[in-house]
Amino acid sequence: MSIRVAIAGARGRMGSAAVKVMMEAQDIEVVAVLDYKYDGMFLHSTGVDAERGGIPIYTMLEKLADEQKPDVLLELTDPDAVFNNAKSALALGIRPVVGTSGLSPESISILTELSAAQRVGGIIAPNFSIGAVLMMKFSAMASRYLGDVEILEMHHDKKVDSPSGTAVKTAEMIMQERQSHVQGHPDEKEHRSGARGADFDGMKIHSIRLPGLLAHQEVLLSGAGELLSIRHDSFDRKCFMPGVLMAIRYVMDSRDFVYGLENIIE
Amino acid sequence: MSIRVAIAGARGRMGSAAVKVMMEAQDIEVVAVLDYKYDGMFLHSTGVDAERGGIPIYTMLEKLADEQKPDVLLELTDPDAVFNNAKSALALGIRPVVGTSGLSPESISILTELSAAQRVGGIIAPNFSIGAVLMMKFSAMASRYLGDVEILEMHHDKKVDSPSGTAVKTAEMIMQERQSHVQGHPDEKEHRSGARGADFDGMKIHSIRLPGLLAHQEVLLSGAGELLSIRHDSFDRKCFMPGVLMAIRYVMDSRDFVYGLENIIE
Amino acid sequence: MSIRVAIAGARGRMGSAAVKVMMEAQDIEVVAVLDYKYDGMFLHSTGVDAERGGIPIYTMLEKLADEQKPDVLLELTDPDAVFNNAKSALALGIRPVVGTSGLSPESISILTELSAAQRVGGIIAPNFSIGAVLMMKFSAMASRYLGDVEILEMHHDKKVDSPSGTAVKTAEMIMQERQSHVQGHPDEKEHRSGARGADFDGMKIHSIRLPGLLAHQEVLLSGAGELLSIRHDSFDRKCFMPGVLMAIRYVMDSRDFVYGLENIIE
Amino acid sequence: MSIRVAIAGARGRMGSAAVKVMMEAQDIEVVAVLDYKYDGMFLHSTGVDAERGGIPIYTMLEKLADEQKPDVLLELTDPDAVFNNAKSALALGIRPVVGTSGLSPESISILTELSAAQRVGGIIAPNFSIGAVLMMKFSAMASRYLGDVEILEMHHDKKVDSPSGTAVKTAEMIMQERQSHVQGHPDEKEHRSGARGADFDGMKIHSIRLPGLLAHQEVLLSGAGELLSIRHDSFDRKCFMPGVLMAIRYVMDSRDFVYGLENIIE
Repeated sequence: MSIRVAIAGARGRMGSAAVKVMMEAQDIEVVAVLDYKYDGMFLHSTGVDAERGGIPIYTMLEKLADEQKPDVLLELTDPDAVFNNAKSALALGIRPVVGTSGLSPESISILTELSAAQRVGGIIAPNFSIGAVLMMKFSAMASRYLGDVEILEMHHDKKVDSPSGTAVKTAEMIMQERQSHVQGHPDEKEHRSGARGADFDGMKIHSIRLPGLLAHQEVLLSGAGELLSIRHDSFDRKCFMPGVLMAIRYVMDSRDFVYGLENIIE
Repeated sequence: MSIRVAIAGARGRMGSAAVKVMMEAQDIEVVAVLDYKYDGMFLHSTGVDAERGGIPIYTMLEKLADEQKPDVLLELTDPDAVFNNAKSALALGIRPVVGTSGLSPESISILTELSAAQRVGGIIAPNFSIGAVLMMKFSAMASRYLGDVEILEMHHDKKVDSPSGTAVKTAEMIMQERQSHVQGHPDEKEHRSGARGADFDGMKIHSIRLPGLLAHQEVLLSGAGELLSIRHDSFDRKCFMPGVLMAIRYVMDSRDFVYGLENIIE
Repeated sequence: MSIRVAIAGARGRMGSAAVKVMMEAQDIEVVAVLDYKYDGMFLHSTGVDAERGGIPIYTMLEKLADEQKPDVLLELTDPDAVFNNAKSALALGIRPVVGTSGLSPESISILTELSAAQRVGGIIAPNFSIGAVLMMKFSAMASRYLGDVEILEMHHDKKVDSPSGTAVKTAEMIMQERQSHVQGHPDEKEHRSGARGADFDGMKIHSIRLPGLLAHQEVLLSGAGELLSIRHDSFDRKCFMPGVLMAIRYVMDSRDFVYGLENIIE
Repeated sequence: MSIRVAIAGARGRMGSAAVKVMMEAQDIEVVAVLDYKYDGMFLHSTGVDAERGGIPIYTMLEKLADEQKPDVLLELTDPDAVFNNAKSALALGIRPVVGTSGLSPESISILTELSAAQRVGGIIAPNFSIGAVLMMKFSAMASRYLGDVEILEMHHDKKVDSPSGTAVKTAEMIMQERQSHVQGHPDEKEHRSGARGADFDGMKIHSIRLPGLLAHQEVLLSGAGELLSIRHDSFDRKCFMPGVLMAIRYVMDSRDFVYGLENIIE
């Protein structure tokens, strides 16, 4: 029997890619779409490449749940909608699989408690790319032994914020593992301000912004006489799909509420 | 009380670097040198930078053991001498820490059995660089998820053999983890022979040899839309020293006989 | 007065991108499309994002020339059509700008002679990416001083042929400049066949094929104690457009017939 | 007839390497050493690996010139001594080849004028590595076409100053060629100060300092859809020697006074 998935955000770029990959997965069935409009229509008629007449759209999760009995709600909308949808899903016994980095620690706490109370599992994944998650995880593991770390994150120049969320998350994960210390020469001098990058618990983060880039990060870890470099390049949105499928399958087998794909990757 | 270490190969480049780093470690004492000559002399008088009158040289392990009571024998000589020295050490209750990639599977089996019989631990490490070992370990772990792999190893052009031992060892470790398959396009054509590199269980290995290089390896792991690159650069012999110390400390706490530093790194 | 450009191959991926960028250029006007069908229709009605009613389609170059008086024919179709179209263009006094790597040396000779006879300039560019052309040009220049070279080209695994055309072209350009010699150790041994890559005049070429990759090439040049690495990454078809515009402007000012964008980049 | 070279700074690390490489060059003879002590002794007796009795030491350039008639003075001492030695050399008709980045613009002007007045050529080279000079030169050339640039320079953490002299010199050379503009998003926000690196005429420079590194620099140049990366790794002091020899040979054939090896590399 296949896993019945409802999806919120199906008309977005991540969402429509997810619909496509779930339709190709033999153990997963997309049974419905949750949206803020188009109630009663079918997904294919909104311009998304989907089975004709196959996937009905609902604007109310309760009605969707009642009629389509989903096992999982895949949530790919914005942080505002995510929290309420995830909470409602848990209350209805539907496992939420949420792709966002925008939830506050308080919101995550509330969802975690509700999950435990309802005995319904769920996942929040700020990053569904397995490669990116492995980069972060390995960097943290390596920093126990190679404790001097600099993070280089590289993005197209349409990105306003620096450093990137992934770079900060990587630094946080490293901070949990390495022996904290201030790096570089004690008498270090910046003759041009900013040369040595941003500080994070003694580590350094450098943000590169160039028009041709996509999304890339390299973590440099060093000890005496050696350098370990762990780099991830995202070339296409497709790279998120294996993580989406992995998360959907995981919540069917577990009642844990998990924050971060790194916790379900061995 | 400090760990009493005897060292074989102390006059070589790795050996003299190891003597130096052990003398700086507060929990380790270099109590003797095993050599094929200079019996009765002291290490500093052979040109090695060591404490004057501090480290006596023996040509017989039995006599060394009897007089100096070492806990550990650090073995940094060539494969020919290594096996007999390690066997003798185990028989005498001394833990061998061996740095060589030249032992046959049969020799390793014999040492493993003797270790169990004597209830004395030991380690054989083909590579003492923690960074290199992490590169191999992470590559194997990542290949479960990103199963298409190419290995690029880069060395100075005085290296005769290709691919390098580390590249082959990496491929072996990946083979244990990933789902085996032949990579590339099924109709792939090499218009110049060798372009696609050496095959190893469907993976590819490429050996680069250039005069200016030292010792470098990069493992490329890829899935749809993404690339994870794990690279290690050895710039200096110093990079082997933390692994030497880690191995010496490990055998004091364990009766296991371990092949590969990756098995004692968490 | 703007440059009047006719384009062949306007409905392809390169072609439609070129139409877009030329419409944005103030000194260029797309006056017509040459196609094998849709005679008399307008480009926008074939599904290409173009001005409504603005760009007429012709199936005969003579008629197109007569009615639209183009200065330049931008040729982005396949090698079969390219030669005849370019020849006809030259005969009609239209400057051909051709993007293909598929023309034979004989075809190139014929076009060069015809260009001289007609006193009409033209360009054939196997690669319109300025970054890729600079990579090749710099590699050739550097090989005079750093004469040991290995070329790594990396593409998605849908690419059947290896090495890539760009890698071979790079090696040819280097061969013109460096002092020829066989690289590596004279007693070099491949324990697995292909490890050392494909040979090209003593240099080595390595072809990497992985599912997530796009199109990348790195040229490693080395001398004693140092390494110079020149790498180009193509992330998007947009990278060809500045070269297309540069070529169009160049042929308006020159009567030369040029093979390779590297010859018009200073 | 070979080129007669006197060397100042022969007992330093660069100097003793230069003596060695010049002794191996068939067209060059090291005829004397200029030093601040050891007058009348021979170089080999100061601990440098040199021909026994072959290279006399002088503390006065005039006497050295008179007795040994050098064509060239290779100056590898510190900036304080360099200026006076180079000036004296020019006055005596000896061509100075100077390896330092510490001379002021005023000092360079004075030497240039004196060189013209004396009709004696000379070179000042802040960096003798041909690979590093090519990296800078190519980066400047490429910035005409790929005008968005970020420079990453990477050194061991014993280096106090950032950014490195080579990074600043690279940026200066690029500034001469590219169309000046401020890079990145106009509304760019640094959530951690320094993330976007140091500014140099709208470009960005990032300085990485890690214990295992040697001396490395990578210049990233980008346009729409593409990235060109030009990287140089210095692994060993040997990499400076070809530039030293090239400079010595150059000044024999030219009366120009040149600043920067890039001006004699074609």
